Amino acid sequence: MQYHVNGDLVPGDEATVSVSDRGFQYGDAAFETLRAYGGEPFEWAAHRERLQRTAETLGFGDAVPDDLRERVDETLAANDLDEAYVRLSVTRGVQPGKLTPDEDVEPTVVVIVKGLPRGGRDGESVWDEPADVQTVKTRRIPGEALPADAKTHNYLNGILGRLELRRAATEEFSADECLMRDVDGTVVEGATSNLFFVTENGLRTPSEDLDLLPGVTRSVVMDLAREEEFPVETGHYSVDAVREADEAFLTNSTWEIRPVATVDGIDVGAGPMTKLLTRLFDERVEERHY
Amino acid sequence: MQYHVNGDLVPGDEATVSVSDRGFQYGDAAFETLRAYGGEPFEWAAHRERLQRTAETLGFGDAVPDDLRERVDETLAANDLDEAYVRLSVTRGVQPGKLTPDEDVEPTVVVIVKGLPRGGRDGESVWDEPADVQTVKTRRIPGEALPADAKTHNYLNGILGRLELRRAATEEFSADECLMRDVDGTVVEGATSNLFFVTENGLRTPSEDLDLLPGVTRSVVMDLAREEEFPVETGHYSVDAVREADEAFLTNSTWEIRPVATVDGIDVGAGPMTKLLTRLFDERVEERHY
Repeated sequence: MQYHVNGDLVPGDEATVSVSDRGFQYGDAAFETLRAYGGEPFEWAAHRERLQRTAETLGFGDAVPDDLRERVDETLAANDLDEAYVRLSVTRGVQPGKLTPDEDVEPTVVVIVKGLPRGGRDGESVWDEPADVQTVKTRRIPGEALPADAKTHNYLNGILGRLELRRAATEEFSADECLMRDVDGTVVEGATSNLFFVTENGLRTPSEDLDLLPGVTRSVVMDLAREEEFPVETGHYSVDAVREADEAFLTNSTWEIRPVATVDGIDVGAGPMTKLLTRLFDERVEERHY
Repeated sequence: MQYHVNGDLVPGDEATVSVSDRGFQYGDAAFETLRAYGGEPFEWAAHRERLQRTAETLGFGDAVPDDLRERVDETLAANDLDEAYVRLSVTRGVQPGKLTPDEDVEPTVVVIVKGLPRGGRDGESVWDEPADVQTVKTRRIPGEALPADAKTHNYLNGILGRLELRRAATEEFSADECLMRDVDGTVVEGATSNLFFVTENGLRTPSEDLDLLPGVTRSVVMDLAREEEFPVETGHYSVDAVREADEAFLTNSTWEIRPVATVDGIDVGAGPMTKLLTRLFDERVEERHY
């Protein structure tokens, strides 16, 4: 596999960053993960915009290179990949050894890819089974401490959530995703996914005034639902509301729409709304990419 | 400069980690910064123990190599450094591309050094002036979201605090350190330092039940004060209490004891307690290292 590092294609096993890079030392970096379908990144503009926003939050908005899209295309082409997972990172680069960042930024820019199954109408999902979801003790970080809508290399909060699942796993059962709450106990999202659930009143998802990362797939799903004139309610929900839902699903760029089988051992499952939205999502991918 | 990467000494500009290393991708790594005086790491046991604790919090306690001290010594020797800053990192290494960590860890272990002035009785401080401290809006991360006593590569919270200082800086004035509060408004620490202040009742410092990183230098200073039978009170304090203090100082491994000149523009300054503790600290270094 060839990766793109600071403007050059390099073999994956030689793709490195300096141990003095702030992206390594402090997680001082913005990133995005996205999918390419039929050789083209899905929802490129939305990912590019969020990366820019994250970089601005971190004070290096000017450092995101203009030719990022070309770098992604070159990396896909070099690996002869049409169907792929793509990870983009822009770090604050190497700076003299103090915590306060220098205004002068020479960013480190990395593009990683790997093959993923085809999406769209005849596509396969990257997950094998609907997700078993479990509520964890680890709470999402309040926005006053770290803005939740910035997607950065500071990802330990989600990792600690996933470690709780690993520690609770048995030979028979291990959960796939955490249900993470904020410090007030309100449901926010998964470690790497946004949550939707369905009640008789329609589709519901935690609102953006909570400390969540508003995913690109989340936003596509909300658009699709609105186009069908399904009511989408955003709000503050308890774990109980999710456990009692008629249907629930998770969204992220790689999973797309992944039905939730159980929440804390309670059956929730997919249903007509999840299936319809999945079909509409697949059609959207099909129309735009194949 | 030679650094130590995964058991080998390598020239600093060739010291790298894989772009797939979790330490880079997620800040999934434990670290320590410490000083060497007279060729020996100061308070090695305390730093080694905290690194171990951090690794355990992150679920890779077994990955910290037994010969870490030898690697530090080799790095110092290779660079002919007796007086040095040392940064140790242990990451979860490269793992297959999913957020949930694999139990099987091949850690990435990095030792970075650079020269620092001699410490002890005739030593020079690494800082030029007492610190100007400024309260920032960014709050410390609650322990329920990320344990504060784990020292990890997720350091953006402190960086955001420092960015506030940078943005508020003028040609005449820029603050050196942030005063960071928790989400309840209680004073916790600086971005890279612990805070002490002095009132007529003695020495005070935010208590460990707050979400702070209990520094090794903080602990040495508390020991020195107790040996002199100075009362040390740990508690929950407001910004006002710090602004109104008779004296204040910051501690960390590189600064050692750094007096606070001002807090939010209000003069605080050093005084007899700060001076005496600095002298006692220098003597401790002198006795043990020269």
